[in-house]
Amino acid sequence: MQQATATEAFEARLRSYHEMTRRALLRSVPVREPRRYLYDLVPSYPTRPGKGLRPALCIGTCRAFGGSVENVLGSAVTIEFFHNAFLVHDDVEDGSEYRRGRPTLHAEHGLGIAVNVGDAMNVLSIRPLMENLAVLGPAMTWHVFEEIQHMVLQSVEGQAMELGWVRDNSCRLDDDDYLRMTLKKTCWYTCIHPCRIGALVADGSNRDLDRFNRFGFFMGAAFQIQDDLLNLVGDRRRYGKEIGGDVWEGKRTLMLIHVLNSASDEEHARLRRFLEKPRANRSATDIRWVYRLMSKYGSVDYGRERARELAEGAQAEFEIAYADAPLGDDRAFIEQIVFYMVQRDV
Amino acid sequence: MQQATATEAFEARLRSYHEMTRRALLRSVPVREPRRYLYDLVPSYPTRPGKGLRPALCIGTCRAFGGSVENVLGSAVTIEFFHNAFLVHDDVEDGSEYRRGRPTLHAEHGLGIAVNVGDAMNVLSIRPLMENLAVLGPAMTWHVFEEIQHMVLQSVEGQAMELGWVRDNSCRLDDDDYLRMTLKKTCWYTCIHPCRIGALVADGSNRDLDRFNRFGFFMGAAFQIQDDLLNLVGDRRRYGKEIGGDVWEGKRTLMLIHVLNSASDEEHARLRRFLEKPRANRSATDIRWVYRLMSKYGSVDYGRERARELAEGAQAEFEIAYADAPLGDDRAFIEQIVFYMVQRDV
Repeated sequence: MQQATATEAFEARLRSYHEMTRRALLRSVPVREPRRYLYDLVPSYPTRPGKGLRPALCIGTCRAFGGSVENVLGSAVTIEFFHNAFLVHDDVEDGSEYRRGRPTLHAEHGLGIAVNVGDAMNVLSIRPLMENLAVLGPAMTWHVFEEIQHMVLQSVEGQAMELGWVRDNSCRLDDDDYLRMTLKKTCWYTCIHPCRIGALVADGSNRDLDRFNRFGFFMGAAFQIQDDLLNLVGDRRRYGKEIGGDVWEGKRTLMLIHVLNSASDEEHARLRRFLEKPRANRSATDIRWVYRLMSKYGSVDYGRERARELAEGAQAEFEIAYADAPLGDDRAFIEQIVFYMVQRDV
Repeated sequence: MQQATATEAFEARLRSYHEMTRRALLRSVPVREPRRYLYDLVPSYPTRPGKGLRPALCIGTCRAFGGSVENVLGSAVTIEFFHNAFLVHDDVEDGSEYRRGRPTLHAEHGLGIAVNVGDAMNVLSIRPLMENLAVLGPAMTWHVFEEIQHMVLQSVEGQAMELGWVRDNSCRLDDDDYLRMTLKKTCWYTCIHPCRIGALVADGSNRDLDRFNRFGFFMGAAFQIQDDLLNLVGDRRRYGKEIGGDVWEGKRTLMLIHVLNSASDEEHARLRRFLEKPRANRSATDIRWVYRLMSKYGSVDYGRERARELAEGAQAEFEIAYADAPLGDDRAFIEQIVFYMVQRDV
């Protein structure tokens, strides 16, 4: 009963941060023409079901270090807005068909319009931070902006690594390659920078922000592996994307890398041939065979185990990164996010 | 002889501003991994042949109002970098095959990588401005940044209008629609903001920057119509894109709008059917027929006439916008750019 109440309180707080972020995000979308192929489409991804973990980490960290929601909200909205812009282009780049239970933006409105809406979202994402200038002052605003710049550049670097592996049909990758790519593609913008920016806004530039890098890396990598596991073996309705989509796309997930490295020479050669086909030429029979091979070598269990280890690492790093945050609900909220991010089934 | 010397001096100055912009742009590209599918591709468009009109307008305006090249270079580089990022995504959105005499980035490296490289270029474009902070100071840097934000948002709005027309197969457009779209898609980032930012950096926020809006609108619209004319009837090798590419793409140029509004009911219906086909289903025979129809109704001459009128408007507005710029080479350079932009054959 105690436990249920703690979980409910955590989820209520998560929802509340997500809701205030979403409302502020939607308020920052211009109300003017061109609507139909631009501003009407900007809210599409942000209003689909989502967890709002990034703004929660940002707002929660700010509060844990004594800052206020009011001061950090603009920055949290910028991070969440950027995240949604990133998803629009990511779906184009991967040729994904579903996002959060509905067709992707490019599947609904065509490629050109989706790329342009993503560009608009990237520009708009910085406005909530700009509008926060009066609250944060120029020096702090500029510092947050530099954090955001680093965050965005890391994300496109990670994206380039992943797209390059598919393009080159790279089949000789290992866990370290995967973790390096995931650090760039996911960890910086999903975990590290939300925490850094939250702490920065809470008490200026006095704190060593690099303390969040290891914590955010472990948490983000556990989160990404969990995301890839859900893509592989999740519940279609709850997960909101096509199950097995990553296999269809040939994405180098930890589990695909595991099966590539576990396979016999003959299986490896067949996997390589499967992966070098254009997506449209892959068949359901191919996909079933990849699943069987993953089952044979225990790749899903391997992924679960690595995610668990990384989550444990995140818990240990939490103690270091938040050592001087006073005990209380705000600090506990961050700790609960770590559990939540890797134990989620959506 | 006098004339030849004046033209040579103008072109030498244009080349010099372009070269210093290009060098500074390339210096701001990170030298690190991932190279092959990211940083190696960022210089692709910026190093192809181009005229560098945007940085020339920006640097030239700054100097015309007494500012220095050193102070404005970072902003000029940001504008030119953004322009190249915009072209990468524009080529994806339009499905274009050639840019500046070579295959477009997505034709060479695939759609996903091109979208991601364009994203990287958008992030990187702001760095030269950020690095200029020590020179401009925080207040001025922030003001330039706001100008850039407006510039980028106007561009995506114009892009959305144009893409929406193709998507809806809009066939009832007029010159005003075209000019509204062109103001957004082209004029702000090609002319208005380069001038505004040049003047801003020259002497702070004291000057009324809106004085450049009409000048830049006339000049930018004349420039865009001239660009569309070259696409229609230019020299393939000099122009660097496929001639007739706009017709293949169904782009609503002033000339296409003219022929739609001049055509008989029967011709209009056939044009509409041609335009509603996917690009891949259009044939060379279709294209030739559109060219014949444009010839029958004098659409190319109509476009040339409108471009000429707009260029005259730009010359008249030049006198107002630059009224208090001292006479001399720097002021004359801007005036020459107006001629150059609309009389160019590349």
